[in-house]
Amino acid sequence: MPCWLDFVNFLIKEQVHIYTQYIYIYVDFLYPLSNIMSTINPDLQQERNGATFNPYELTIWWDGGTEKYEKRKALEKLFLEDPELKDDLPLSYMSHREIYENSVRKAVLIAKKLRDLRDIGELSVDTYTALLGGTLGCALLKEGNPLSVHFVMFLPTILGQGTIKQQIEWLSKAWELNIIGTYAQTELGHGTFLRGLETRADYDEKAQEFVLNSPTLTAYKWWPGGLGHTANYAVVVAQLYTLRKFRSLAPFIVQIRDEETHMPMPGIDIGEIGPKLGMKSGNNGYLGFKNVRVPLDHMLMKNQQVLSDGTYIPPKNSALTYGTMMFVRVVLIRDASFALAKASTIAVRYSAVRRQSPIDPNRPEPQIMDHITQQLKVFPQVAKAVVFKATGDIVYDMYAHVSQEIEKGALERLPEMHALSCCLKAVCSADAASGVEVCRLACGGHGYMDCSNFPTLYGMSTAVCTYEGENTVMLLQTARYLVKAYGQAAINPHVQLVPTVAYIKKIINEPKFVGFSGSSEAIVEAFQYVAANKIRIAYERLEQQMREGAIPEVATNRCGIEMIQAAELHGRAFLALTALTELQALSQKVSPALSEIFQLLLELYLVDACLQKIGDFLRFITLTEQDVNGLELHLQECLKRLRPNVVTLVDGFDLHDRILDSALGAYDGNVYEKIFAAAKKSPLNKEAVNASFHKYLKPLMKSNL
Amino acid sequence: MPCWLDFVNFLIKEQVHIYTQYIYIYVDFLYPLSNIMSTINPDLQQERNGATFNPYELTIWWDGGTEKYEKRKALEKLFLEDPELKDDLPLSYMSHREIYENSVRKAVLIAKKLRDLRDIGELSVDTYTALLGGTLGCALLKEGNPLSVHFVMFLPTILGQGTIKQQIEWLSKAWELNIIGTYAQTELGHGTFLRGLETRADYDEKAQEFVLNSPTLTAYKWWPGGLGHTANYAVVVAQLYTLRKFRSLAPFIVQIRDEETHMPMPGIDIGEIGPKLGMKSGNNGYLGFKNVRVPLDHMLMKNQQVLSDGTYIPPKNSALTYGTMMFVRVVLIRDASFALAKASTIAVRYSAVRRQSPIDPNRPEPQIMDHITQQLKVFPQVAKAVVFKATGDIVYDMYAHVSQEIEKGALERLPEMHALSCCLKAVCSADAASGVEVCRLACGGHGYMDCSNFPTLYGMSTAVCTYEGENTVMLLQTARYLVKAYGQAAINPHVQLVPTVAYIKKIINEPKFVGFSGSSEAIVEAFQYVAANKIRIAYERLEQQMREGAIPEVATNRCGIEMIQAAELHGRAFLALTALTELQALSQKVSPALSEIFQLLLELYLVDACLQKIGDFLRFITLTEQDVNGLELHLQECLKRLRPNVVTLVDGFDLHDRILDSALGAYDGNVYEKIFAAAKKSPLNKEAVNASFHKYLKPLMKSNL
Repeated sequence: MPCWLDFVNFLIKEQVHIYTQYIYIYVDFLYPLSNIMSTINPDLQQERNGATFNPYELTIWWDGGTEKYEKRKALEKLFLEDPELKDDLPLSYMSHREIYENSVRKAVLIAKKLRDLRDIGELSVDTYTALLGGTLGCALLKEGNPLSVHFVMFLPTILGQGTIKQQIEWLSKAWELNIIGTYAQTELGHGTFLRGLETRADYDEKAQEFVLNSPTLTAYKWWPGGLGHTANYAVVVAQLYTLRKFRSLAPFIVQIRDEETHMPMPGIDIGEIGPKLGMKSGNNGYLGFKNVRVPLDHMLMKNQQVLSDGTYIPPKNSALTYGTMMFVRVVLIRDASFALAKASTIAVRYSAVRRQSPIDPNRPEPQIMDHITQQLKVFPQVAKAVVFKATGDIVYDMYAHVSQEIEKGALERLPEMHALSCCLKAVCSADAASGVEVCRLACGGHGYMDCSNFPTLYGMSTAVCTYEGENTVMLLQTARYLVKAYGQAAINPHVQLVPTVAYIKKIINEPKFVGFSGSSEAIVEAFQYVAANKIRIAYERLEQQMREGAIPEVATNRCGIEMIQAAELHGRAFLALTALTELQALSQKVSPALSEIFQLLLELYLVDACLQKIGDFLRFITLTEQDVNGLELHLQECLKRLRPNVVTLVDGFDLHDRILDSALGAYDGNVYEKIFAAAKKSPLNKEAVNASFHKYLKPLMKSNL
Repeated sequence: MPCWLDFVNFLIKEQVHIYTQYIYIYVDFLYPLSNIMSTINPDLQQERNGATFNPYELTIWWDGGTEKYEKRKALEKLFLEDPELKDDLPLSYMSHREIYENSVRKAVLIAKKLRDLRDIGELSVDTYTALLGGTLGCALLKEGNPLSVHFVMFLPTILGQGTIKQQIEWLSKAWELNIIGTYAQTELGHGTFLRGLETRADYDEKAQEFVLNSPTLTAYKWWPGGLGHTANYAVVVAQLYTLRKFRSLAPFIVQIRDEETHMPMPGIDIGEIGPKLGMKSGNNGYLGFKNVRVPLDHMLMKNQQVLSDGTYIPPKNSALTYGTMMFVRVVLIRDASFALAKASTIAVRYSAVRRQSPIDPNRPEPQIMDHITQQLKVFPQVAKAVVFKATGDIVYDMYAHVSQEIEKGALERLPEMHALSCCLKAVCSADAASGVEVCRLACGGHGYMDCSNFPTLYGMSTAVCTYEGENTVMLLQTARYLVKAYGQAAINPHVQLVPTVAYIKKIINEPKFVGFSGSSEAIVEAFQYVAANKIRIAYERLEQQMREGAIPEVATNRCGIEMIQAAELHGRAFLALTALTELQALSQKVSPALSEIFQLLLELYLVDACLQKIGDFLRFITLTEQDVNGLELHLQECLKRLRPNVVTLVDGFDLHDRILDSALGAYDGNVYEKIFAAAKKSPLNKEAVNASFHKYLKPLMKSNL
């Protein structure tokens, strides 16, 4: 039987590029209305005609090769052309109940289609991942799939934490969808700090059963996707007590609804938590227990065991738990790239079509993309999408390598990998969410409309800042690792540091970087100096606090600001270095025309990143006023050079119109027709006069005549 | 008859504090469920017990005196205790149609209540403004009132641009609500650049009528609130042609729906534009014209006239138009304060109740407010709320003064006032929107829930970045004024500059500020040096571009980045100076206990603002590494000093629970009970099993057994 590591290794071996499957079909329109022109907007066409490179070459890199490209196209065709998987009415017109019922309908259709594919031997892991991820999955269920957690958490947890016997018992039922599961860990009053969870499982050795209880309101499970009304089983994480002694946190398979009637099981208080920003159709739920009895063999016992007499056998090590969390965070770097690719595609195309405010008073209103302030907003987001993609791939490879080492029992690089994945998750998700908003605001009033897809895109992007490790918590985890590494180097400058933090040693003898040339290499090195100095400051203030009598934990809290700043800069230094090495390496492998684009994106990314942190640069790098002026003018020059190719560049991300789902960003650029078509879909527009006129307005208007 | 300036002057004379009317009634719960405790959360109570000042004293300042405080309380009681104006079902569970119909129902109730008040002589202008603004108005109709534009745009436009005869004809109908109007200016393809509007009005001198047409799809009016299905009249802004010659933009009163049947009038294509981020119940609409005929006397002719033979008489000056825009922007500074007050109240109270992640491993999980990283997020937003309030009041007074001068024909300070209001609108709205998001993210997962009210609050706050002058456009307008002023000073250092830009001259002889002490006064002066240097750079690069042959407009576009940075810093320098003078002046007038709070907020605001722009400070102010360290430690000290009083401080904003509308932020702090109560309201939770189980899920789960 496979364990979760096999599952992950399978993904790695197959080089499955999760969440990065796109395509557009040129004749497939977002709104199949006859009044939409079937021609390409001439402004967009002119941009495409003027490009110096072939977007298809970029797409092939983005997809990871022609074979993956073809597979993606076929999968998208299969699902996106299914009329039952299209919504006639946009979600934003529906009630909360309608949104849920529609999402179950579609989730079941998708699940059936997956089973059909399996039955003809055409199902691969990447089909699952595309359909549950942010690309094809979002095109089909833009506010989330209530069955997602079944596939991405329930199944992997049984794989990772169940014994072989438990896997045999539960996996086939779960793969066949005879049961639908969810994963219930977070509680109403408890998230980040797992030991604070209140749900408890007391082992009753006479009955050989666990008794689950939610002792307080804050102990209610809260947030699990699909828990509300969809799942009938859950993996529940609870505080385990045996023989009246607290043992550890442990996972239990709990039946929450009857398999025939779907009624909640006795002692189960269950429902959904209500609407929220992002994932509106995820059916996130709550769950309370009152003396719910669970058989002994429903505790997942691969890592720790309870014997029938109540004897507790603790786990050998917790490295594997680390592993799952790292895996998800590594995937989130690519999700950040994907969110920026979506948002910048919409903003770039709209900026090429929208005309406003003359620059030269004697000429007509220009494309708003010709305003340099517009370029400043949108172009850096395109560059970030590419840099995060390249970084995501690299970190994925690093992760795969570290996983293999772990399998062999070598855990040395685990803390380093953990520290890196934490800060990158925080930095990339924060940049993606703010980048999406910058793109939205760059689209003026129309960016606010649901038909732009920006509101949904923001909801989905900002959620990543909080889930799978809240960003500030992530930065603090990285920071603890960094100050420890700095401490080692400060005490012994000859200590061997692991690769991703080795740069710290640079500042031990030479705290300030002199001779900044403004080149990409210089910016990367300067970022390392800045990060190392930020780590030094955190370390020194920690030491100072402890000298003044604070225990380490209190000192760490008092230095929280310095810690998160250090971790953020560590992440940014890594991104800068990866951008340099990866985009330069890529440039060697592609056509000269695309090579130039990669070089330009590298410059734009680095000079923008540097100017965003210019305060830190001025503190720790010897910079003259001329250097700063030079950086500012370099940024402007990058924007100018990217201008002629930027439309074709986002074309190269090759995002299907259904995935973009935006009246502003469709491939054909018929922006106004599509905005109008979206408004025409409003149920309120189906009748000339709304009932409220006769009921409320007319009596008011006539009441005093 | 009053003109719009009379209207505004009335507001000023009465010292009406628009949008700042609050109260809480301690026993009025957000969710009237029996399982909610009627006691105050003990953590919150302990915070209140430990405060060193009386929040009531702060409230009285915030409200503008005890009389206004009492009036606000009475008004809130009258409207908030009306059971018909409460929603049993939160909006987020409703369909788009239900949201609209509910909003019309409530808007009509509010309008009737206002008329009743008038009939007993109890109606004042501040009643209108409170009910249409972001405080009481938001508590009653959180996603916007479809009648708002009638009051805030339709009526004032007739006042400001109609002749006395037109005012007599239209105002009484409009005040009596016998007709409901809206204001249609923005088009699908045209916003900022008014001359680009396409809707045209051709005068037919034979029929003595104007003929209105939308020549293209992009000419459709788009966005006006209430236009969709509510209003039956509109002021329409169109390109005026008489005698086959283009004349100018002009406003026309157009009947768009029949007064009896509410059916669209002939030639009118009308509907709503669909859902969007923020203002979901504003019923924003679209409007197209096909040969719609409007009588000659429906053009508003106070400023420009068309005679019956088609002769066009142009306006004398456009200062009054400036005036209206300035007025709105000045009001938006206070709105920014209000948004931050709301968001920070919610985040502060939640941070006092939520416990998570031990600091000292031997003690229980602390209030998250004890994590310094949490203080860093939330406390500066509280300080900004207070500084923006003080600034809003001051700028309001400046505006009133300038208006009086305009009335006397003295237009000298108009451009200065315009420049100041533009950049402050941009800076304050951007800070408010990002501050709301910082507060939301500081509340972890629960901040995403609709019942936190953060999603709505963000939608309403971010919209201000785009409406009434898009922020980048605003900054560019200010920047043009600033570089002109700099140019005058550069050529003649003895030139007399108007008060708000006089600081520019400081850097002419002494470009760098030496001797920075870190005091509040030093930070304010440093901000002026930084702003002046940013203006200098914009000016110099503009000059450089023009020397190289660019026409001024093209040069301005090329220097767009420098321009917006200069304008932003000008706004920030003004805010810093106002914070210093106003909070110090206030400190003289209040009790020593509150005085200390104001002093502390001033320090916190300034040191945070300075560190946010530390890159600019390091460039233009002589700062040592010790100075920067000193600023960082000063910020931490401010956070620590504010900690014991921060709950009482937000209590002093005195925001009624219905205005906050947040399960996380209610006065009693029973956070978890209120979140749970909100979830229980879900229609999906009213039944144990949703119909979709039998229809979709069960067939799937049983299909292969």
